[in-house]
Amino acid sequence: MSFPLLFDFYELTMAYGYFRAGIHERTAVFDLFYRKGPFEHPYVLFVGLEGVLQGIENFRFGEDEIRYLQSVAPQIRDEQFWDLLRRFRFHGTIYAPEEGTVMFPREPMLRVEGKLFEVQLLETMLLTYVNHQSLIATAAHRMVEAAAGKPVIEMGARRAQGVDAAIDGARAAYIGGVSKTATTEAGRRFGIPITGTMAHSFVLAFHRDVQSPDQAKEAELEAFTAYAEAFPDQCLLVVDTTDVERSGLPNAIAVFRKLREKGYEPIGVRIDSGDLAYLSRVCRKALDEAGFPGAQIIASSDLDEFVIRDLLAQGAPIDAFGVGTNLITARSDPALGGVYKLAAIEWEENGERHLSTPIKLSENPTKVTLPGRKNVVRLLKDGQFVGDLIILEDEEDPKGPLRMIHPEYRWKQKVVTDYEAIRLLRPVYRDGRRLIDKITPDTARQTAAQSLAQLSPEHRRLHMPHEPHVDLSDALYERWMAEIHRRRMEKVQ
Amino acid sequence: MSFPLLFDFYELTMAYGYFRAGIHERTAVFDLFYRKGPFEHPYVLFVGLEGVLQGIENFRFGEDEIRYLQSVAPQIRDEQFWDLLRRFRFHGTIYAPEEGTVMFPREPMLRVEGKLFEVQLLETMLLTYVNHQSLIATAAHRMVEAAAGKPVIEMGARRAQGVDAAIDGARAAYIGGVSKTATTEAGRRFGIPITGTMAHSFVLAFHRDVQSPDQAKEAELEAFTAYAEAFPDQCLLVVDTTDVERSGLPNAIAVFRKLREKGYEPIGVRIDSGDLAYLSRVCRKALDEAGFPGAQIIASSDLDEFVIRDLLAQGAPIDAFGVGTNLITARSDPALGGVYKLAAIEWEENGERHLSTPIKLSENPTKVTLPGRKNVVRLLKDGQFVGDLIILEDEEDPKGPLRMIHPEYRWKQKVVTDYEAIRLLRPVYRDGRRLIDKITPDTARQTAAQSLAQLSPEHRRLHMPHEPHVDLSDALYERWMAEIHRRRMEKVQ
Repeated sequence: MSFPLLFDFYELTMAYGYFRAGIHERTAVFDLFYRKGPFEHPYVLFVGLEGVLQGIENFRFGEDEIRYLQSVAPQIRDEQFWDLLRRFRFHGTIYAPEEGTVMFPREPMLRVEGKLFEVQLLETMLLTYVNHQSLIATAAHRMVEAAAGKPVIEMGARRAQGVDAAIDGARAAYIGGVSKTATTEAGRRFGIPITGTMAHSFVLAFHRDVQSPDQAKEAELEAFTAYAEAFPDQCLLVVDTTDVERSGLPNAIAVFRKLREKGYEPIGVRIDSGDLAYLSRVCRKALDEAGFPGAQIIASSDLDEFVIRDLLAQGAPIDAFGVGTNLITARSDPALGGVYKLAAIEWEENGERHLSTPIKLSENPTKVTLPGRKNVVRLLKDGQFVGDLIILEDEEDPKGPLRMIHPEYRWKQKVVTDYEAIRLLRPVYRDGRRLIDKITPDTARQTAAQSLAQLSPEHRRLHMPHEPHVDLSDALYERWMAEIHRRRMEKVQ
Repeated sequence: MSFPLLFDFYELTMAYGYFRAGIHERTAVFDLFYRKGPFEHPYVLFVGLEGVLQGIENFRFGEDEIRYLQSVAPQIRDEQFWDLLRRFRFHGTIYAPEEGTVMFPREPMLRVEGKLFEVQLLETMLLTYVNHQSLIATAAHRMVEAAAGKPVIEMGARRAQGVDAAIDGARAAYIGGVSKTATTEAGRRFGIPITGTMAHSFVLAFHRDVQSPDQAKEAELEAFTAYAEAFPDQCLLVVDTTDVERSGLPNAIAVFRKLREKGYEPIGVRIDSGDLAYLSRVCRKALDEAGFPGAQIIASSDLDEFVIRDLLAQGAPIDAFGVGTNLITARSDPALGGVYKLAAIEWEENGERHLSTPIKLSENPTKVTLPGRKNVVRLLKDGQFVGDLIILEDEEDPKGPLRMIHPEYRWKQKVVTDYEAIRLLRPVYRDGRRLIDKITPDTARQTAAQSLAQLSPEHRRLHMPHEPHVDLSDALYERWMAEIHRRRMEKVQ
């Protein structure tokens, strides 16, 4: 049995560095968080937790793995170190919100506590899952939001960045609100509803020796008829192989009439090129006049949230949207920049153990990290989001009137009363085993829907949304400032 | 043993439609090609062939798979059809250029011939591999080109769109010219050189109870010393955890001096934030003055081809570039829009077999496909690229003076003489087995380098490159126009 070595090589060299310094078993606390939302969106849906929990279970080193690592790190000759890897199981604790929860910049989405070398080795694996899947779920949410209640179908596998991107991406998109996927394996693996009908090649396969437009039209009719015979109760026909108005649409209506004679109602037509607003109106009118007001019009062809919004704003009679590339790659902003930063480290002095809370100052002020073991408290009033407070784990939940203070613009404040406080991070993995059941896409999808329903329409707006209140507790703010000032070096020019 | 169902569900419904119409075993020819290069780049490196060949070998349907498909397609009750899937092996033929070859828009990168239902089922799998890997290889090539001979290191796994994207992406990036990857599993799986040293967390792990900037600086020195002891011959130190000029750099030099006393030369320093041009100059000066002119300066932090080019244009003394997100996601254009289109289909009439060559007209003129079994002839003169000619497979290679004619702007012509003609597509898979050896990343990397060396600097320019000549043979052009006119329906307004 072989396990993928899902880490950056520096996680191994650092692990050995810790080992040589004798600090590899000190307790360390890492936060996984992002600094800026993709698409200038003010939040992301936290997705990838189930992948993370399964990934941790598979995070092992067999003899093959050890041999490979020894070959690329011949400097490491301590057998004790290699034995540490041979016995590797993650024994620490992971804290996380429920998969699907809305999370804001700087909020820990995972808090990982354990032996320094163990938590360091997990870095890349945790980031890859959470960054990718949260990104795609958030992209999906935006398209679903734009579709304003009409179903969105994910069909991007062929443009996905690899097989995982297609399959895990379909799961994330479903959690973000799409109704179905075309990716068969995502259906099988996760139980997500799948869908699919025909491509243009199906029509062209019936183009025998076509010599005239009439013969091309006949060939299309033959293709449609064949499809309707195979799937009489699932008849959705792609109508733009040669000409929507002169061929695809009249052929589809002819086939729908025959179907009805046999007692079947058609699903409808799909338009995959051309001006979708114009063509959908042409199709709607013809279908209505032919007596098929129930036949749906599905549109696809390079859709994204803005095209969907504009089509609907123009009153295009489209019943469902198929989205491919722009969703499965989050094309307009294809990476969530989640990071994994040390927030606390145990230290021994005179036989006593201390937890120190370092921060990275960095040359970029926006990259300064927050110190300590933290949690996030979501404040709701009448079920609606009023703000988040990042607190130190050992603080009590806030009670009574609460003055929230913007962490940068300190004069920006608001007082919140009569709120409900919900601590978002709870342990999900401890001592080598997961503490929560397998998370199905449906569970995470529900979590996302509930979490999103707490936000106002202003927060959910696609363009120039309202910035949510995410503040730091007084104790965290003071610790943060103290750690900065302890490290800040005077620059004299 | 379970196989992933790597297809869009419509490939199955179409397969059944073909089966019901009795045409599923007719010979069909599909082309895989792209219409427009990513990043407005005039070509891509064709990568993904090894993945495709392995994917085809794994393309099977076990009983689990059949059961799942039956559950989602209950309309399909023909046991004969399910038996076809149970026995599924791809028996057709695949033609492809060598993995790594430069390919231009509209040129077939794969030509797939076989039974209609078989070639249809492969659609998504072929597209996913080729689209993703060709994209990343091309993105890597641009960054390597910008780096003008300095090494580029791939380190994007944490931002990749899933685990495959990280691992296969690292392989593609290597083929595109990067020198090393940080992704350990890519090293193990493909034999690509890997590299890695330390993150900021390594420094912060030594921040015990820091009370002053001096103590922070001491902690960093302690971390550097620990790392140098673990890897005395591989000492590369990240110098921007608190302050490059006042802490990281002087600490690094102190450690380098100790190393030298022990007989080791340092690798150098890494800068991961701040202004890289300014900081690299500061580091270079200090390292030179301290007697370490051989110590390298590695820069990272959101680099892409344009930042690399500009840093070098400003004379920043950077010796190697680490690139993450922008490479592994091809951030500025994260999808190659490869498509898979029917180009020919066998037809029986009066007991005779014909190969008809349909095209898709589509509502978008740029999406009109090219008909027939095609190949690509690369024309070289003195080893340099002068143009490509897309021809019909049964045409002879061009000989003697050749008039090349732009397929759209027909007045744009040039006559080429004394050229060498190389047919790019050759069979790589036939009758259920691959015809070529396993393609190593090094082989494909060499192919890419040779193929790129045939292009002029004008073609390889990052911004506003010269458009290469890619024309159609007269026979193909005439067939194309004939097929269009046979299908074009008169629009009267």
